[in-house]
Amino acid sequence: MSAHDAVEVIIAKRDGQQLSESQIDWVIDAYTRGDVADEQMSALAMAILLNGMERSEISRWTAAMIASGERMDFSSLSRPTSDKHSTGGVGDKITLPLAPLVAACGVAVPQLSGRGLGHTGGTLDKLESIPGWRAALTNAEMLAQLESVGAVICAAGDGLAPADKKLYALRDVTGTVEAIPLIASSIMSKKIAEGTGSLVLDVKVGTGAFMKDVARARELAEVMVGLGTDAGVRTVALLTDMATPLGLTAGNAIEVTESVEVLAGGGPADVVELTVALAREMLAGAGRDDVDPAEVLASGRAMDTWKAMIRAQDGDPDAALPVARESHVVTAPASGVLTRLDAMAVGLAAWRLGAGRARKEDPVQAGAGVVWHARPGDAVTEGAPLFTLLTDEPARFERALASLDGGYDIAPAGSPVELTPLVIDRVGA
Amino acid sequence: MSAHDAVEVIIAKRDGQQLSESQIDWVIDAYTRGDVADEQMSALAMAILLNGMERSEISRWTAAMIASGERMDFSSLSRPTSDKHSTGGVGDKITLPLAPLVAACGVAVPQLSGRGLGHTGGTLDKLESIPGWRAALTNAEMLAQLESVGAVICAAGDGLAPADKKLYALRDVTGTVEAIPLIASSIMSKKIAEGTGSLVLDVKVGTGAFMKDVARARELAEVMVGLGTDAGVRTVALLTDMATPLGLTAGNAIEVTESVEVLAGGGPADVVELTVALAREMLAGAGRDDVDPAEVLASGRAMDTWKAMIRAQDGDPDAALPVARESHVVTAPASGVLTRLDAMAVGLAAWRLGAGRARKEDPVQAGAGVVWHARPGDAVTEGAPLFTLLTDEPARFERALASLDGGYDIAPAGSPVELTPLVIDRVGA
Repeated sequence: MSAHDAVEVIIAKRDGQQLSESQIDWVIDAYTRGDVADEQMSALAMAILLNGMERSEISRWTAAMIASGERMDFSSLSRPTSDKHSTGGVGDKITLPLAPLVAACGVAVPQLSGRGLGHTGGTLDKLESIPGWRAALTNAEMLAQLESVGAVICAAGDGLAPADKKLYALRDVTGTVEAIPLIASSIMSKKIAEGTGSLVLDVKVGTGAFMKDVARARELAEVMVGLGTDAGVRTVALLTDMATPLGLTAGNAIEVTESVEVLAGGGPADVVELTVALAREMLAGAGRDDVDPAEVLASGRAMDTWKAMIRAQDGDPDAALPVARESHVVTAPASGVLTRLDAMAVGLAAWRLGAGRARKEDPVQAGAGVVWHARPGDAVTEGAPLFTLLTDEPARFERALASLDGGYDIAPAGSPVELTPLVIDRVGA
Repeated sequence: MSAHDAVEVIIAKRDGQQLSESQIDWVIDAYTRGDVADEQMSALAMAILLNGMERSEISRWTAAMIASGERMDFSSLSRPTSDKHSTGGVGDKITLPLAPLVAACGVAVPQLSGRGLGHTGGTLDKLESIPGWRAALTNAEMLAQLESVGAVICAAGDGLAPADKKLYALRDVTGTVEAIPLIASSIMSKKIAEGTGSLVLDVKVGTGAFMKDVARARELAEVMVGLGTDAGVRTVALLTDMATPLGLTAGNAIEVTESVEVLAGGGPADVVELTVALAREMLAGAGRDDVDPAEVLASGRAMDTWKAMIRAQDGDPDAALPVARESHVVTAPASGVLTRLDAMAVGLAAWRLGAGRARKEDPVQAGAGVVWHARPGDAVTEGAPLFTLLTDEPARFERALASLDGGYDIAPAGSPVELTPLVIDRVGA
């Protein structure tokens, strides 16, 4: 690897040039080793955010981040593998029913997940509300569980893409999160290093999502699908609505309960619809489009896999889940039809109630969150419950209520309601 | 001062917004105190470089940097004050004859100078070749010398614009030096904090200067003149040529010798021309355009002031200056007329001979440098000396010679020579 210099690489990107493969390899490696300082990498990240990167640069950047750590290998498994990644939304518990459903269909799901930060929840936080369940597995435990159960949801180890871990923390404090090349390479470096054979991306669009408009979401999806394809991972993306929160709950234990309802054949229609749509894509990516996930869900086999998956990680799937100590009901101020329910308003309320964290080291409350009793298009009655707010600390109600202010609209009964389709678009290789 | 957040300020500039006065005051103060981290300030600097700043923002940014430290006050002096700043060039010894000349005309010159870095020389490095001379003065010593002698050239204390000191070091390693708002505010914060009543800026243009083209140099000059004017300092700028090095020497002791020749009524015509032109502007700024600096220079009074100024700082103006231990002569490869002498080539050669430093902590050689025996337009004779290279370490000759390669052109005698005027333009308030 030829020697470069941090200032030279920064100035090249600052002046709108394309970085060479050798510059990219050098800067990622030197940053991981600490030879490129944080203040140099943040200047480079800002130059990338403002001046962009070509597809070939993003691909090399991703490869260099993968090369900074270990790569997992599931080729010894008897089943094909498929994974899903969501860019994050409110009430997005889809991974919980999806992983056991796809495993029950015969495709192994190695799902490395994260914890929540800000208004979007984290899959690990949700599962940790189940008594005994543990997120940390060794690579050997993960492989064994994939063989025996077919699905594993666990924390990503420190060995995968350490350059991304360091860069992500830096971007968070330097205003350089919102760069498509950096978002795409961050997500895809971890997913490619994880070793999945195929991948489905759930790119959220709307007020409660990172990407507020369809054009930016499509751009991100296209870049990520390209990166996966370049790396030999069969990748597709669905653009899905996050103007409205998913299901009827946002929190931790309450989202587990809703997920179990879906596995039991019930649950909110939108959660079922998205779970099945993503399962179909994962099965197709793994070459198993002969299996119908809706049938498998109805059969109860996905619930069996769920219980086995929770037990394999020392959780008790039949135990009672934690319940918040305090609740507060918001009633509908008028009768009519709910025409809008804002995902960001609900997500902020759940976060302020204690379901999420402000800083990485903060704990979350297992029982906290928001339940909404209607979705857009549903009739509401003046004085009947519209939201139930849950927390262990009643002092949190005030700010949570404030974030719901203006977060929904009720129109007279019979008014037309414009509903966004849940799956907005599909981006394939 | 209202509370802000580093990420909020970075994102505002990243997204092309104008920073508020309160955001600017907060970020400069918090950075000086260490509450805004280097990696945050470098991301902000890159966003400023790429997205620019409005005049009002640069003005506030400059004021905030001034407010980060002390402000000097020369209002107790019996004379008006004027200062000069050069953006840096090769062979630019103008401060040496200029400060005593203007003082001899009745205007006090409080010149806070720096050391050289890279291919451009530093005024303090040059003066330190005079036996006994010291650059560090207390504020009280500076004030006393201004009253008694009328001119002082010394090192800027740590108290002036500490935010700028910290930011300048950061920009140097993060590829964010070349931003006009940051260059202008860096220079002007120090000059305004220094307390001069009027200021003349010598903005260099050409291969040997920071600004390679007239348009960028004019933009920088206009911004700086505006900043000075906004702060109540009468400010003008001259754009002057730095495609060709000034005078016939680039180094330390050899530039002192050339400066003394100018004070004695001799010296290269271009050095005399620029010294007198800048003196006229300084005198006009201080309300003393009744005095003709060319007459004062011819009278020998400027030489008297020079000697008094050197003696006041413990230097011996009559002592012999250090001489390099080794010299190497480059002869003209052909007879004819010198049509081009490249300032950058000469500056690099002098630097490589030991006249300049690569890192702040490096020493410089007092005797090292380059003497050229012809200027563009002069006749040269094949085999006659064209350059004399001086250093204490003969191992340095090879790389110095390499940097002169291609750095000059000789055409047949009688060929037309296109000479750039020394003073290209004037930017006034």
